[in-house]
Amino acid sequence: MSDLTPFFKPKSVAVIGASDDPRKLGYDVFKNLRRYPGGNVYPINVRREYVQGVKAYRSVKDLPEAPELAVIIVPKKFVKPSLIECGEVGVRAAIIITAGFRETGEEGLREELELVKIAKEYGIRVVGPNCVGVMNVPAGLNATFVMDAKPGHIGFISQSGALGGAIIYKTVKELIGFSKFISVGNMADVDFSDLMLYLRDDPDTKAIALYVEGVRKGRRFMEVAEEVVKVKPVIVLKGGRFGKGARAVASHTGSLAGNYGIYEAAFRQSGIIEASTIDELLSMARAFTEPLPSLTSAGMIGAAILTNAGGAGVLVTDELERRGMAVTDLSLDTVKKLRSILPPMAAVKNPVDMIASATGSEYYEVTKLLLEDPNVGLVIAACVVPTFGGMSPTEHAEGVVKAWDESGRKKPLLALFMAGEVSAKAREYLEKEGVPTYERPEDVAAAAYALIKQAINAGTLQSA
Amino acid sequence: MSDLTPFFKPKSVAVIGASDDPRKLGYDVFKNLRRYPGGNVYPINVRREYVQGVKAYRSVKDLPEAPELAVIIVPKKFVKPSLIECGEVGVRAAIIITAGFRETGEEGLREELELVKIAKEYGIRVVGPNCVGVMNVPAGLNATFVMDAKPGHIGFISQSGALGGAIIYKTVKELIGFSKFISVGNMADVDFSDLMLYLRDDPDTKAIALYVEGVRKGRRFMEVAEEVVKVKPVIVLKGGRFGKGARAVASHTGSLAGNYGIYEAAFRQSGIIEASTIDELLSMARAFTEPLPSLTSAGMIGAAILTNAGGAGVLVTDELERRGMAVTDLSLDTVKKLRSILPPMAAVKNPVDMIASATGSEYYEVTKLLLEDPNVGLVIAACVVPTFGGMSPTEHAEGVVKAWDESGRKKPLLALFMAGEVSAKAREYLEKEGVPTYERPEDVAAAAYALIKQAINAGTLQSA
Repeated sequence: MSDLTPFFKPKSVAVIGASDDPRKLGYDVFKNLRRYPGGNVYPINVRREYVQGVKAYRSVKDLPEAPELAVIIVPKKFVKPSLIECGEVGVRAAIIITAGFRETGEEGLREELELVKIAKEYGIRVVGPNCVGVMNVPAGLNATFVMDAKPGHIGFISQSGALGGAIIYKTVKELIGFSKFISVGNMADVDFSDLMLYLRDDPDTKAIALYVEGVRKGRRFMEVAEEVVKVKPVIVLKGGRFGKGARAVASHTGSLAGNYGIYEAAFRQSGIIEASTIDELLSMARAFTEPLPSLTSAGMIGAAILTNAGGAGVLVTDELERRGMAVTDLSLDTVKKLRSILPPMAAVKNPVDMIASATGSEYYEVTKLLLEDPNVGLVIAACVVPTFGGMSPTEHAEGVVKAWDESGRKKPLLALFMAGEVSAKAREYLEKEGVPTYERPEDVAAAAYALIKQAINAGTLQSA
Repeated sequence: MSDLTPFFKPKSVAVIGASDDPRKLGYDVFKNLRRYPGGNVYPINVRREYVQGVKAYRSVKDLPEAPELAVIIVPKKFVKPSLIECGEVGVRAAIIITAGFRETGEEGLREELELVKIAKEYGIRVVGPNCVGVMNVPAGLNATFVMDAKPGHIGFISQSGALGGAIIYKTVKELIGFSKFISVGNMADVDFSDLMLYLRDDPDTKAIALYVEGVRKGRRFMEVAEEVVKVKPVIVLKGGRFGKGARAVASHTGSLAGNYGIYEAAFRQSGIIEASTIDELLSMARAFTEPLPSLTSAGMIGAAILTNAGGAGVLVTDELERRGMAVTDLSLDTVKKLRSILPPMAAVKNPVDMIASATGSEYYEVTKLLLEDPNVGLVIAACVVPTFGGMSPTEHAEGVVKAWDESGRKKPLLALFMAGEVSAKAREYLEKEGVPTYERPEDVAAAAYALIKQAINAGTLQSA
């Protein structure tokens, strides 16, 4: 199989269908790609000498160099001749954004298979058709018509383009970043398996997230996933799980949603972690910033929770227990020490409720004690940043990070900061320090679950 | 039972323990309450002549008038004498914020029961102790130490003060508003039942949301709920559902979390709608802005979905079906008309996928057709606001509202706008027009579920 690098780090790019008309997708694609610092980006337009002020060419054949990557965003009838021209000049990778193929029925499928045949003949790998495109976020490559994603460590492969776009929009304001984004569309050629393998070896990617409507080569998908999860977590959200959702999938990306039970079993068997919502998918994928949990001396992987809001501790505990995760009993030594440093109204069982008056230095001391406890495999620091008592909005976060640093960051630490804008500063600080932060109890619980699952998949932990 | 109005519309208020020291809760409580436009607010402080520049009094006995409401935020040993003084001058309602009673064990419980006895003798109703306080948002009353909530129509009763506070912080940035907020704390006197009855008759409240850790007078709770749900929906999030979550509840608000199965059955039997997360609780409560769904001519209450992003339609459908809700089949007439106005690549089954190019006028026409379809009981308009094609970020929302207005707003309309900041303007507009808007497929599905459940509870719909 040929290498997918030209999709992500092309030495030169042609945008076939680059446009000056802001109502056309070719306008946004070229506008986004122009900013790519890694190579020349050429607009191809049959009618214009300049596109967005840049000298345009009538065909890839007229370019001063053969582009490694071509992005094709022309009316459907011009896709095939454009692809042939790409083949003739030696393009290695093509992203076909244009829709109207397999997803429209039999005739469209026939036309799509024709494209595949041409691509094979010329040795071009194809992403799409019927897709939003590809981003390599740290490299500054945005070969899509949607806004730039925030840089981060999630490699995200979406079978729905618009949903993928919506997730980009949403995450820009939520401190969630991506290494790569690939809208796979109809997967005429490049598919989930190819991309999982690529992302496994991509140093910028720490977790692989998939939105899947239907998988075609099921056996290969499972075999590849089994290999990939040994190195990096693969987390999936399955769309089209039930009757009419499944029907909608068929007209959407021309996939068969198939029997959900079969997908569930396949995911489980190949070590893929399943999410049930977009937020769960992202929450899980974000958790992978640091080493995975390992077994404690007590042979446990149980979570310990500290909080300054009783209800937050209760809800996190509920969500962990609902997922079948052990909320550990603290060692007697820890309980004794907690009793000696916390006020009498605090609860020193797990979850440790430090009550609303808890200061940054109490957060430091309690986090330290929990990280040192041999019964604890993973710590969740929950905090409702107070708007009273003259406390700084970041002192709690700083206390937690200080304790984690002193412990050598050997156990995973996740943070739940629940106070909306009031928490924003603290969350930003934590993220910068490598602590994945969440705003909702169910999200931090999903993250803890994913960390432990992946530790089992990767062989760091024995399955309980 | 005496009336709870003095908690929400007091003619005068005393803050016992008002402080000049920003590290004390009495500082924030007085700072918040000072802004109350409905009556005089007096600081009580034994050591200071002025608090925050306002003339202070040593005792409620020294005030020029008897306050209707007293907020007590003094060290624990002064709570009892303060309450007695309140009784002596004729205070009608007391919010005891101070903690350290029932939740700390037997001795604390004894002291709490003593407070109840004193209150009974003097005819004072008590909210708390161990609580964050009370807000009447439209009246500008904030008798808590947390920031002002956004005004809206949810009456929210929380058994966790800090969690309640966190929800206020979070909702301020999420367009979610409240009519009343009551942190009930230990519920020594005023409890869920009293407050549900009050909120049932409160014209500013359209939906009642509860965060419950443990209910003490279970039978009355159920009887009251059964009455209340005939008028307004009651939606509950239960904290402490499982083993250690339940244990945490005991040390938090001194309640018994009890067997979750029993709670589940009681909620179901009394017509309370259960949410499983904070966001679900809020999503459901927000849905109640307009008349409830009613049976269609086909005897159905099925939902119809329109979308410009296939994946969004798939996920909403999945979430509705997971909850056992009917995603309706559109009438043949609707399908025919949709086919004639939408481009060939659009899917005209339910969900209707108008594809990414959909304009505001297509949103208008499709919403109109769906609202007119006798098979449709409720419409969900999903949209990934495009950042391409030069479309205005609100044109889709405007199209939807225009169709809804023309239909006489007879069927519920919910909106899912999924594009983060890009959708912000459209969401603001929709909310102003009375359309509940959501950012996540599972939230809009939860909202639709709650609308239908409540229509059944209120007797508008026969249960299927």
